[in-house]
Amino acid sequence: MDTKYVYFFREGNAGMRDLLGGKGANLAEMTNIGLSVPRGFTITTEACREYYAKEQEFPEGLWDQMMPAVGVLEEEMGKRFGDLENPLLVSVRSGAKFSMPGMMDTILNLGLNDQTVEALARGTDNPRFAYDCYRRFIQMFGNVVLEMEGFRFEEILERAKEAQGVQYDSQLSTESLQGLVESFKDLVLQETGNPFPEDPLEQLRQSVEAVFRSWGNHRAVVYRRANKIPDDMGTAVNVQAMVFGNMGDDSGTGVAFTRDPSTGEKVLYGEYLMNAQGEDVVAGIRTPHPIRSLEQENPEIYNQFVEITKTLEGHYKNMQDIEFTIEKGRLFILQTRNGKCTISAALRIAVELCREGVIDREEAVRRVDPYQIGTLLHRRIDDKAVLNVVATGLAASPGAASGKIVFDADTAEERGLAEEKVLLVRMETTPDDIHGFLAAQGILTSRGGMTSHAAVVARHMGKPAVCGCEALKIDYASKTLTIGDTVYHENDVLAIDGGTGRVIVGDVPMRDPELSQEFLAILEWANDIRNLRVLANADTPPDATVAREFGAEGIGLCRTEHMFMDPSRLPTVRKMILAQTLPERQEALDELLPWQEEDFYGILKAMQGLPVTIRLLDPPLHEFLPDVDGILKALAELRTRKAALEGLTDEGDQIPGGDPPEGEGAGDHRDADQSEEAKLAQALLLEIQDQIFDQEVLLRKVRALHELNPMLGHRGCRVGITYPEVYAMQARAIFRAAARLTREGVTVYPLVKVPLVAHFREMQVMRDVVVAEAQKVSSEMGIEFPYQVGAMLEVPRAALTADEIAEYADFFSFGTNDLTQMVFGFSRDDAEGKFLPTYTSEKILPENPFAVLDAEGVGKMMKIGVDLARKVKPEIKIGICGEHGGDPASIQFTETIGLDYVSCSPFRVPVARLAAAHSALQMRE
Amino acid sequence: MDTKYVYFFREGNAGMRDLLGGKGANLAEMTNIGLSVPRGFTITTEACREYYAKEQEFPEGLWDQMMPAVGVLEEEMGKRFGDLENPLLVSVRSGAKFSMPGMMDTILNLGLNDQTVEALARGTDNPRFAYDCYRRFIQMFGNVVLEMEGFRFEEILERAKEAQGVQYDSQLSTESLQGLVESFKDLVLQETGNPFPEDPLEQLRQSVEAVFRSWGNHRAVVYRRANKIPDDMGTAVNVQAMVFGNMGDDSGTGVAFTRDPSTGEKVLYGEYLMNAQGEDVVAGIRTPHPIRSLEQENPEIYNQFVEITKTLEGHYKNMQDIEFTIEKGRLFILQTRNGKCTISAALRIAVELCREGVIDREEAVRRVDPYQIGTLLHRRIDDKAVLNVVATGLAASPGAASGKIVFDADTAEERGLAEEKVLLVRMETTPDDIHGFLAAQGILTSRGGMTSHAAVVARHMGKPAVCGCEALKIDYASKTLTIGDTVYHENDVLAIDGGTGRVIVGDVPMRDPELSQEFLAILEWANDIRNLRVLANADTPPDATVAREFGAEGIGLCRTEHMFMDPSRLPTVRKMILAQTLPERQEALDELLPWQEEDFYGILKAMQGLPVTIRLLDPPLHEFLPDVDGILKALAELRTRKAALEGLTDEGDQIPGGDPPEGEGAGDHRDADQSEEAKLAQALLLEIQDQIFDQEVLLRKVRALHELNPMLGHRGCRVGITYPEVYAMQARAIFRAAARLTREGVTVYPLVKVPLVAHFREMQVMRDVVVAEAQKVSSEMGIEFPYQVGAMLEVPRAALTADEIAEYADFFSFGTNDLTQMVFGFSRDDAEGKFLPTYTSEKILPENPFAVLDAEGVGKMMKIGVDLARKVKPEIKIGICGEHGGDPASIQFTETIGLDYVSCSPFRVPVARLAAAHSALQMRE
Repeated sequence: MDTKYVYFFREGNAGMRDLLGGKGANLAEMTNIGLSVPRGFTITTEACREYYAKEQEFPEGLWDQMMPAVGVLEEEMGKRFGDLENPLLVSVRSGAKFSMPGMMDTILNLGLNDQTVEALARGTDNPRFAYDCYRRFIQMFGNVVLEMEGFRFEEILERAKEAQGVQYDSQLSTESLQGLVESFKDLVLQETGNPFPEDPLEQLRQSVEAVFRSWGNHRAVVYRRANKIPDDMGTAVNVQAMVFGNMGDDSGTGVAFTRDPSTGEKVLYGEYLMNAQGEDVVAGIRTPHPIRSLEQENPEIYNQFVEITKTLEGHYKNMQDIEFTIEKGRLFILQTRNGKCTISAALRIAVELCREGVIDREEAVRRVDPYQIGTLLHRRIDDKAVLNVVATGLAASPGAASGKIVFDADTAEERGLAEEKVLLVRMETTPDDIHGFLAAQGILTSRGGMTSHAAVVARHMGKPAVCGCEALKIDYASKTLTIGDTVYHENDVLAIDGGTGRVIVGDVPMRDPELSQEFLAILEWANDIRNLRVLANADTPPDATVAREFGAEGIGLCRTEHMFMDPSRLPTVRKMILAQTLPERQEALDELLPWQEEDFYGILKAMQGLPVTIRLLDPPLHEFLPDVDGILKALAELRTRKAALEGLTDEGDQIPGGDPPEGEGAGDHRDADQSEEAKLAQALLLEIQDQIFDQEVLLRKVRALHELNPMLGHRGCRVGITYPEVYAMQARAIFRAAARLTREGVTVYPLVKVPLVAHFREMQVMRDVVVAEAQKVSSEMGIEFPYQVGAMLEVPRAALTADEIAEYADFFSFGTNDLTQMVFGFSRDDAEGKFLPTYTSEKILPENPFAVLDAEGVGKMMKIGVDLARKVKPEIKIGICGEHGGDPASIQFTETIGLDYVSCSPFRVPVARLAAAHSALQMRE
Repeated sequence: MDTKYVYFFREGNAGMRDLLGGKGANLAEMTNIGLSVPRGFTITTEACREYYAKEQEFPEGLWDQMMPAVGVLEEEMGKRFGDLENPLLVSVRSGAKFSMPGMMDTILNLGLNDQTVEALARGTDNPRFAYDCYRRFIQMFGNVVLEMEGFRFEEILERAKEAQGVQYDSQLSTESLQGLVESFKDLVLQETGNPFPEDPLEQLRQSVEAVFRSWGNHRAVVYRRANKIPDDMGTAVNVQAMVFGNMGDDSGTGVAFTRDPSTGEKVLYGEYLMNAQGEDVVAGIRTPHPIRSLEQENPEIYNQFVEITKTLEGHYKNMQDIEFTIEKGRLFILQTRNGKCTISAALRIAVELCREGVIDREEAVRRVDPYQIGTLLHRRIDDKAVLNVVATGLAASPGAASGKIVFDADTAEERGLAEEKVLLVRMETTPDDIHGFLAAQGILTSRGGMTSHAAVVARHMGKPAVCGCEALKIDYASKTLTIGDTVYHENDVLAIDGGTGRVIVGDVPMRDPELSQEFLAILEWANDIRNLRVLANADTPPDATVAREFGAEGIGLCRTEHMFMDPSRLPTVRKMILAQTLPERQEALDELLPWQEEDFYGILKAMQGLPVTIRLLDPPLHEFLPDVDGILKALAELRTRKAALEGLTDEGDQIPGGDPPEGEGAGDHRDADQSEEAKLAQALLLEIQDQIFDQEVLLRKVRALHELNPMLGHRGCRVGITYPEVYAMQARAIFRAAARLTREGVTVYPLVKVPLVAHFREMQVMRDVVVAEAQKVSSEMGIEFPYQVGAMLEVPRAALTADEIAEYADFFSFGTNDLTQMVFGFSRDDAEGKFLPTYTSEKILPENPFAVLDAEGVGKMMKIGVDLARKVKPEIKIGICGEHGGDPASIQFTETIGLDYVSCSPFRVPVARLAAAHSALQMRE
């Protein structure tokens, strides 16, 4: 028997993509579930392969199969090729197994000729439409089938527009279009030596062959190479009847969703226009009607359509986005696909489809995109707001905020206490600004990256922040902010969107976070699916409480440095750092101990029954000190004042400008009582000299602690090694809190995490320090409590020697922020401001590796570490903390290398729970 | 048959360490080559194991084997246990397979009792000596064998000294010692309930058991655990006759080397004393005679000894260090070992032994320590000099230098040009100081680490430097340097030793580098052995020439940044960096091109026929800019002057102090012609305002380029990605130089190395840039030349993805300095000043990983990279450059992971050649 090259749509199904291509299989599927799809047939990919196998000859027997297929098509549509009343027009489209958008050719309105164009004009009562279709068809046919150069047609078109004195194609009159048809046909004759084929069958034959040919065209070949699609698959060709919604008042066209794509509510949602083509709806020339009006206008069609939507949802088990056309009272479905909708709608639809029994819980969970749900967890700018965006910085801490701008923390605090809404604007922030953070709605800085002080603190306070917005020129002296040519003064209102980095002028409508019932249901179902535990990064009891509410199963990272940055403690912390001797340092540590103990008491209590992983002090010590620039500026000012005062006291009788408190009005009595003023100046001078001395001492100490590359400097357990008393104090505080709570009947699980381990000896020594404190506290207080001591794996060497370190660690936690920095050799602060934007825009890197874990590099490093650790301690718990712990793609990667948990900021916990469920589902597949 | 537990020395040999322990096997070996070693026997380790197997019972049959052995010993020595005339005294020493120095017990002079002590007194004619031996023996026996607490004996000893009114043991009279013997014996009776055993056999039995027991003592167990020595090996026990050199004028003792340990000359070298014990020679109470005097004094003994030395050299095939004793005219060899000597001597001995046919070339090469020969390659402080070391910094660049101290580069240059010897002392250096480097003998800085500007530049100029010497307080204003309480002024003479970091007051005698014939011979022989190629790191034609003379086989790393730091080019470099637009930058690059071209022309020519690997620009751009502190200081000064001047011009009639050029004497005409002065001041003010503006602009630009972690910042190929025109210019300069030389008939092999690659896409893009320039130059100049493009592997991610990168790289070069920084997460500059000293002193790390490659971590990372690369490109050449390339242990490691070459600084090339030969020899074994 001859090979079957031609399949009617009703003969195929969705599973036949190899033979019918993606589009053909989809048309077959729709036809088979009983939809009134415009009829047609698919020429198989095998025919295309045969075409190439026979050196581009029309496959033997294909035409013999097409001829009867055309007959059946004519029959089914009640139209005929070349018919003067009711001509059949078809589209001829390519359709390979894998979608290659725009790479191959398509021909529409095939079947038009000098006769049928008139029939179309009459049928639509729109000669302009008919002739426009016809001239486009000739142009497309000439270009695609006859391989004529496109610009030849364009030239003629341009001339026609000039002749008519119009600018756009759409302004051409029917007469012009008729003239164009003639000119195009002349061009075809002239260029090819043959007249334009008026016989629809001839048009069809040539078009099918052209589609076969387009599989081999240059851009398609390049596309396949780039996308690793084999060259020998071939394309199918779909021949489908055209239908027209502009065939009179019993015709029309529309688009509908089976549920409301904004809210997810189960109502038919969409719009339609009678006697119109799809383009008319899109072009907005006429206002479409809501779909419900169709019930009045044409109840039969409406009911038919409602039935179809039910069938489609039932078949595709998802909300459908459906395009339809009504031709002379006959309803055709042109396309259906899963509808795009807002994340709130997606949640509701998934949950309701599940409750309706259409999908199961796993599928419902699978339907909700973890990337999107993150936006529901923060205050955000209303989608409908019109925004005056004046600058863009780094999206440093999600959420939106607006307020009057202020330029220092003290003002922010003052206004904040007065219940004013303020936005703190700084070039960069330091620990001295913390009270300003607390009082402000959000933070905006002109310098610093995603790990700058401002960004880190804001994220952990849950404050919106935009950082490193280099377009801002901030002048503290004049309290102004200049963007481009516009100057903003203190109290002007700006808004920021910390989720996108936008800076917006004026107040902006906001929406509060949403934690709908559907959201909670999906998260609940996700819990039953996921393998990864989800912990939270939280540093304070309120953070811990939020984390718990969001479903965190413990704390994976409690940073202790933020506890040190509390303004009331900072002086003691600085005393500890600047201590020159152990007794001096110990004295400061003894002061810090009760504070730390209360910190840990609060967190352990908030998380009772759940593990709390506390990381010992990590950042470079100088982060707790004032910066050199500030000291230098203070010194410069002091010296200027000193110079001025010296002028005064040296000369004995004149005040030489400067900043005397009297101001200008004081000039009058300059000559009077000079010696009194000189004495005052002398006293002032002495005081200034004292201040200069103090600043100089501070400067020397700060300079001595200065580091060229603090990220790689004296921090983490290196501080623990050089000053074990610091870690001992922290461990003591943790265990005293644990002991007290245990005595009070509260179950606690403190886990102590040693940061920045690079060598097993560090871990060995640090473990000894921690264990010694645990034993001391336990025996002093006469109470036992559980605890573990583990290591952060954030230095490449730690991953490379994880087997050695595992001997001294009860658990491991990948610090992927630092690990990414070190594996890439990228300082995040510098990279994100200086070269990473180029790297992602030039596609040197597919993504910012600080946002999405770099599986090929950083991930490989992690896998090495996991495999080594598990070799010596198969049961050791290994997790990841840091921002990747809240990123869905990264979460999935961690599951593939066998991690046990992820830990992320409290607001990302729901995202992580859902992403972990997705990851588990993917692993099963 | 019973197990043989007792071996006479003559029954063993060097190969029996398992059974006889190290010491026993060695005594056996000496005995067997016919030396008159004091006779004795060894009790096997098996006996010890049996002792432990039987719950610490004296092994059955052991005593039965020991008794006859003692008889034979008495026979051979002509002495008897307990003999009243000629008593046999023995030592009982432990001796395990692996040396455990000081961990187990030893008993000397066993056999002494109330009778034999008198015989010893008579024989040595030294009752004090005899009683001192006796009381020590009782003390040692009591302590070790009877397990009495040592302090009990010490208390009695202290009382005896008090009673006699003396301070030291050696001042005790014979009578006191006799009294002590009685008191000690009383103590033994009182503490143990038994009298001190006077029977030598009883003493022996108990001592042997005590040595067995000491295998299990606490410190030995701890030592074995630390050194991974199995607990079940057991120790052997050596029983050996004591001999005494103080038995009269026919007795004596001495030490001799078979060759001169200072020069290596083949002469007997050593000294001896007649009628003396070894301690007398060491104590320096009497002056020993040179060994040659023995020829006159006792020709028979002398000739006998000379024969023995020849035998020993022949047997051990090495210069020997021999201890001997003559007892009553009978020569005993107590010990022989390979002699320690200077590196110059070691070279000469190795070469001469080879020429004498005693050892082959491989062995000669093996004999010379590559670590030591490094010192021969620099000017160094004479070993005999007495030094007044006042401070120690980092040994930043080897070699010694002395000179008058100066505090700025300009002065250094001025004085240097006047042929004065100066030492440039700075807090830290910048590119602006280069001319000072050139003029100075050496560099001394108070800040910065091994990779600070000063250290890096000094190493590559071959200038001695001590850096980061924090004890120095430098005051530029007063041109003073304070160390402790001492102030040094400009022109005071200091010296530095860049090999050790010492800072020395005053001029110091120096020795020039030595490249003896023997040195050259060893290097020549090393060439025939080694597998690794040895290249040099050289940045200039003179460096390249030195490298070639030292035997470098090409240049493995030519840094281009030092070319940029030339003071005459720096302004153009800064223009390039500060350019805001591409045309601006291109203009600066066009100026730099001809300079770079000449640089490369010179180096390629100097290395003609050999490969030259040129690394494209690597450091962060701000390294070429003035630093913020300097600008801020300049600004502060300008502002102070401005404030002062404003006082003047505002008031209109007074100069209010400050720094007007007139000075104090100008006060007279203050009242005259005020408007003239005011005008001047006004003009000055305007000028200062201009300067302030310029500095502010510069400050803003420098700040914009400022990085928080420049090591991980915008540098290396990241600059190449963001500003491809910079790398294009460098590539163009390289290829233009190559084309010109090729045209001139010079063979060139330029290799272009892309720094800091982390992702294959970087390499792909950079390769395209370089190749495009090569093709352009080639077609412009009509000439072909060979070239390769490779990558530095210095970022962990590059090693992790070396397979991907290899597709775009012709070769790889590990930059182990940066790789170590990133694998450890250590910034070298910060680590070496702040915490690495603690890390090495506390044994957290065995070595400074920047000096000795960390095989377990960094090395593992490298191996991952090598294996991945070779998987896709088996023939790809991979090497290492950076300081590890000159470190012998690191060189050996590179060979084990299959690298092809090492590249090190020119002065380390001989070290590397020798180390590579050692490594090859080790690989064969």
